[in-house]
Amino acid sequence: MGARAGVPCAVVGATGYVGFELTRLLLRHPRLAPPLLLTRESGGNGAGDLAEVFPHVSGNGSLRLEPFAWEKLAARGVELLFLATPPETARAWLPEARRRGLRVIDLSAAWRLRTPAYRAAYNFADADPAAAEAIEQQAVYGLPELARERLRGAQVVANPGCYPTSVILALAPLLGAGLVDTERGIVADSKSGVTGAGKQATPETHFVEVASNFRAYSVFTHRHTGEILEQLGLAPAELVFTTHLLPIPRGILSTIYVHLQRRLAAGEVEQCLRGFYAGCPFVRVFAPPRLPEIQYSLNTNYCDIGFALDEGGTRLVLVSCLDNLLKGAAGQAVQNLNLVYGWDEKEGLA
Amino acid sequence: MGARAGVPCAVVGATGYVGFELTRLLLRHPRLAPPLLLTRESGGNGAGDLAEVFPHVSGNGSLRLEPFAWEKLAARGVELLFLATPPETARAWLPEARRRGLRVIDLSAAWRLRTPAYRAAYNFADADPAAAEAIEQQAVYGLPELARERLRGAQVVANPGCYPTSVILALAPLLGAGLVDTERGIVADSKSGVTGAGKQATPETHFVEVASNFRAYSVFTHRHTGEILEQLGLAPAELVFTTHLLPIPRGILSTIYVHLQRRLAAGEVEQCLRGFYAGCPFVRVFAPPRLPEIQYSLNTNYCDIGFALDEGGTRLVLVSCLDNLLKGAAGQAVQNLNLVYGWDEKEGLA
Amino acid sequence: MGARAGVPCAVVGATGYVGFELTRLLLRHPRLAPPLLLTRESGGNGAGDLAEVFPHVSGNGSLRLEPFAWEKLAARGVELLFLATPPETARAWLPEARRRGLRVIDLSAAWRLRTPAYRAAYNFADADPAAAEAIEQQAVYGLPELARERLRGAQVVANPGCYPTSVILALAPLLGAGLVDTERGIVADSKSGVTGAGKQATPETHFVEVASNFRAYSVFTHRHTGEILEQLGLAPAELVFTTHLLPIPRGILSTIYVHLQRRLAAGEVEQCLRGFYAGCPFVRVFAPPRLPEIQYSLNTNYCDIGFALDEGGTRLVLVSCLDNLLKGAAGQAVQNLNLVYGWDEKEGLA
Amino acid sequence: MGARAGVPCAVVGATGYVGFELTRLLLRHPRLAPPLLLTRESGGNGAGDLAEVFPHVSGNGSLRLEPFAWEKLAARGVELLFLATPPETARAWLPEARRRGLRVIDLSAAWRLRTPAYRAAYNFADADPAAAEAIEQQAVYGLPELARERLRGAQVVANPGCYPTSVILALAPLLGAGLVDTERGIVADSKSGVTGAGKQATPETHFVEVASNFRAYSVFTHRHTGEILEQLGLAPAELVFTTHLLPIPRGILSTIYVHLQRRLAAGEVEQCLRGFYAGCPFVRVFAPPRLPEIQYSLNTNYCDIGFALDEGGTRLVLVSCLDNLLKGAAGQAVQNLNLVYGWDEKEGLA
Repeated sequence: MGARAGVPCAVVGATGYVGFELTRLLLRHPRLAPPLLLTRESGGNGAGDLAEVFPHVSGNGSLRLEPFAWEKLAARGVELLFLATPPETARAWLPEARRRGLRVIDLSAAWRLRTPAYRAAYNFADADPAAAEAIEQQAVYGLPELARERLRGAQVVANPGCYPTSVILALAPLLGAGLVDTERGIVADSKSGVTGAGKQATPETHFVEVASNFRAYSVFTHRHTGEILEQLGLAPAELVFTTHLLPIPRGILSTIYVHLQRRLAAGEVEQCLRGFYAGCPFVRVFAPPRLPEIQYSLNTNYCDIGFALDEGGTRLVLVSCLDNLLKGAAGQAVQNLNLVYGWDEKEGLA
Repeated sequence: MGARAGVPCAVVGATGYVGFELTRLLLRHPRLAPPLLLTRESGGNGAGDLAEVFPHVSGNGSLRLEPFAWEKLAARGVELLFLATPPETARAWLPEARRRGLRVIDLSAAWRLRTPAYRAAYNFADADPAAAEAIEQQAVYGLPELARERLRGAQVVANPGCYPTSVILALAPLLGAGLVDTERGIVADSKSGVTGAGKQATPETHFVEVASNFRAYSVFTHRHTGEILEQLGLAPAELVFTTHLLPIPRGILSTIYVHLQRRLAAGEVEQCLRGFYAGCPFVRVFAPPRLPEIQYSLNTNYCDIGFALDEGGTRLVLVSCLDNLLKGAAGQAVQNLNLVYGWDEKEGLA
Repeated sequence: MGARAGVPCAVVGATGYVGFELTRLLLRHPRLAPPLLLTRESGGNGAGDLAEVFPHVSGNGSLRLEPFAWEKLAARGVELLFLATPPETARAWLPEARRRGLRVIDLSAAWRLRTPAYRAAYNFADADPAAAEAIEQQAVYGLPELARERLRGAQVVANPGCYPTSVILALAPLLGAGLVDTERGIVADSKSGVTGAGKQATPETHFVEVASNFRAYSVFTHRHTGEILEQLGLAPAELVFTTHLLPIPRGILSTIYVHLQRRLAAGEVEQCLRGFYAGCPFVRVFAPPRLPEIQYSLNTNYCDIGFALDEGGTRLVLVSCLDNLLKGAAGQAVQNLNLVYGWDEKEGLA
Repeated sequence: MGARAGVPCAVVGATGYVGFELTRLLLRHPRLAPPLLLTRESGGNGAGDLAEVFPHVSGNGSLRLEPFAWEKLAARGVELLFLATPPETARAWLPEARRRGLRVIDLSAAWRLRTPAYRAAYNFADADPAAAEAIEQQAVYGLPELARERLRGAQVVANPGCYPTSVILALAPLLGAGLVDTERGIVADSKSGVTGAGKQATPETHFVEVASNFRAYSVFTHRHTGEILEQLGLAPAELVFTTHLLPIPRGILSTIYVHLQRRLAAGEVEQCLRGFYAGCPFVRVFAPPRLPEIQYSLNTNYCDIGFALDEGGTRLVLVSCLDNLLKGAAGQAVQNLNLVYGWDEKEGLA
């Protein structure tokens, strides 16, 4: 990659699906120095090259993986840390990272939730609750379309979950305009590809259990529910959120059912969506009868949103699609990076 | 196959996905003579052998395909006709079939609907409206679990659609018990494999457009909606039904969202389902937290039903799965056959 | 299942892909008592029901799994033992099974090889080498089309591997007729679905590593090579055998390249194949230009064989297909069962 | 896209899989003006926007499709024409294109073959045989790794086929070094994803016929055979080339079997490959035991080559992988473009 000028940064967790996708984006980002690639294991056996784990990137020079150590970050002058780790790790490491003055973009769920009841789903055990609370106050929930201003200069960015990104972006405009009858209940029926389940080999991710199959999981209990409720200001009784596993590697489609407060024309719904996302380069609004499909946003940072309205004009089905590894994770992290530093939002994402 | 005693029957449309599956079942059915296999085309070029179209069945003796002609049915003494054709064909042929005294099990949508508004979605043009109305009066909607008594001796069976089977069977017990608050609206979010779209090569069924993809279609406009409403006695405003295309050959999963009239315990829901389907060999009820998956019912005639209840006990998510070619079509037709003739419901379906 | 008269038998390993398929076949076999289902673990925690592991079979009465113990076999009067275990287990258990007078059909590779050099690939450590050698002498390599006579009354059947079945059946007729120029070398390029890799969750069987991918593996080192060489009487230098992983759950296709000893017409090749397999209900020969495809033999016990001949008539490509869990494993075991007992070869396999 | 300075160019066939991939690459290429997008149909109904056919690219400004007309090319000052059309079209249009002084990169098979016997497979009917012959003399077979010098300034580039690229690149180094015993015969067993079959909906590309299936096709008759033979200087009797259809959208893997002239060590084979491709940015050589997999080169312009050698050191299996739409088509076309104009070979392909 050569010695390129730019912000010195590091990635922890480059060998996971999200971390790998992130690393590929960061390597191409024109305003970053090539990232230091760190594994969570602090022992000696974390060494190696990313191309051994992902031969996809072989032939591009050395992409050395090193065991994590705070001193390495200091020695390399790292000022920006990306965490693509389990939430427990990110929860435990943030206080030290902040003490060392590191800016952090955390792709895990560690710092996304402010509502204790929702956070309880993660069972975090904070060694220093006061430090944790301070970070919570500081962390910006990094959904760029909703938090563009707060992101500028943010020290801690909590990068949103993949499912919540797809549901929140679809609902925010209509909820914001007061057009949804939330009391009648919203249903978000989401479907995701298998990279969303992580790279760990489990019985649930075995090819034979997934291919030619389809299933619902975590009905009423998915940990992303709190994230959606909190960001949209909904009460738990106002949303049912379910998740399903698609026999594809990547991509999310959410089908979302709402009752409108009053009869609307399709043009009004479209205008509401388009108005809300004016100036947002990574949201595409589809006009009926065209609906988003997973294939359209694969390998892009787009969130695509479309809808269908019933004849009566009061029942609305929203359909949103995104690539769970990009707009649902690594791409969104880069978008956040750009906004934090005040760069062009599309930098490194074209 | 040999000369086996049994009811003489014929199949029209054995070269489609449903018709082929049906033919395989009929060939193994111990109480039927080997079916006469007819193609819709009445010309001379319909001849051939089923093994040329589906080499899967080669090596099992001749499975000759013949162009359709009423005289052939008479000449072979056929008394039972299976139609696996487009609905327009079945709509046009039934009057003549009845005049000739043939018993018909129709796997198309031609005779499923009594409500003119719902039937309008098909744009049928009846040459003899009076004859059509007479058949409509006579036709039994063949969902065996709901119509066992009416099926005995029926002359015309309208075999249900695949999606409706999955939605109706999941909802019927709770609706029947008056447990659902239908005014708050029911959402049925269904997903189907590609055989449901038929064997015709179209841009929508091209491998590249389906694999690694997922999409919603016919939102608010699917022709199966009327079938569900009519059978469940729901008003159009009480149900939103959407359909999606899964990148798998076969299988349907429906995720169904209802508000309950009163707080229920999971055990009560389970009891309602099990009570309703006591004595029904082809419905399996799953107790939480186990939910049906498409793979469990593939290549079987089962409809599997499971559910999850929220903490409050008033919001219920039902999940039902079936094989769209079997319980959703050909298997159900055989189940109907057995009930029509008063045989064991499982005959030929083990 | 009820108390059915029939040969009392047991299966070890019913929770694997092969063992499960076998169990389903045995449960339907009209001449067997319902099999005792045993897990390899002899401890107490092996108990449970097969439907917990494979909900596919729920709703069919109890299918209790019990920890293995020799005494249980005796107590139930078991006379026939099916082993669907790793080869190490089958290697270790056979001597005791034979001492107890049990007839064994072993689906593993434990007893397939007589050539020490080939067997070395498995690194078996026999506690009692003399007993092992005695069993080796006794074991019949259970490829029914080649060993029909030897199978009758056999006490130990070594059920062939899935890849070897597809390669041996394709080559045996031409080699047997002396038509192949083996000195110029035979290439067998085989491709298999993922059930062939077993049910264990590994990085190699993770959905994301398999879907949208394809790869060769074990080139020049696959342990099935010896089995093919030994059965076909080839020298190692006369065959290159490679294996590849297909992104499908099941099915094997082998493309096999041979040079002929003399110029042949396609009709002669076809005749050679058809003559060899006359009277073999589970081999289907396809005439050019039709070639077997994996889908044709899925969920059947067929091995399909086709071919293409070059213009010159001296270079031949054979294509064979089978379902690796049926003709490549469990179905073939039932075929062997039938031949061992002198029953109709198709019993329980229709 | 804006008005960008750069070489004015046009693409015919942007709505096919190859043409679309090509268009996306050309739109990003820093040295080209945004390409004029033309449909083959010269009538009025070819108008529209590429985003209507491929919503993937919506949100990127207008990508207007226009019916083809030579005058449009002249009016826009087009100097470079990309043809992603059927070979018959490219064969018919080239003479006129040359008369008009257009430089052409043809992605079809129209101008790849000089050997009449091989070209006969395409049944071209040239209106002006003399003009056709002149173009044949002029056309450079654009496999950049073998033709880098000849490509500089070329007026007509015949972009290679996807299968031939994978086979030729794997074999060229060893054949060039005289290490292969061609008399004993080479076997190239190739497998391709479905985009290789084009976007036309046919029974063969129906999802249900491809998913869960795998098949060989065009054995001994594939039209790419001549291309491989001609480029490698092999006689027809020296190569068997077979093709198979993988249930994946894109990617090719070729498994190639050769006998070596003399015993080699793995290191010698590796050195031969690495030496040959020194300075070639788009060929990656894998050292054993690592072999290429389709997933590694997907969405890249790499051709990956690996190998395994038998113990004896005389039998070699080469494995090569590439993305059939990139290195096998559109990416290679851009690589050729760069070499024709003397630009950096990687321009627009990073």
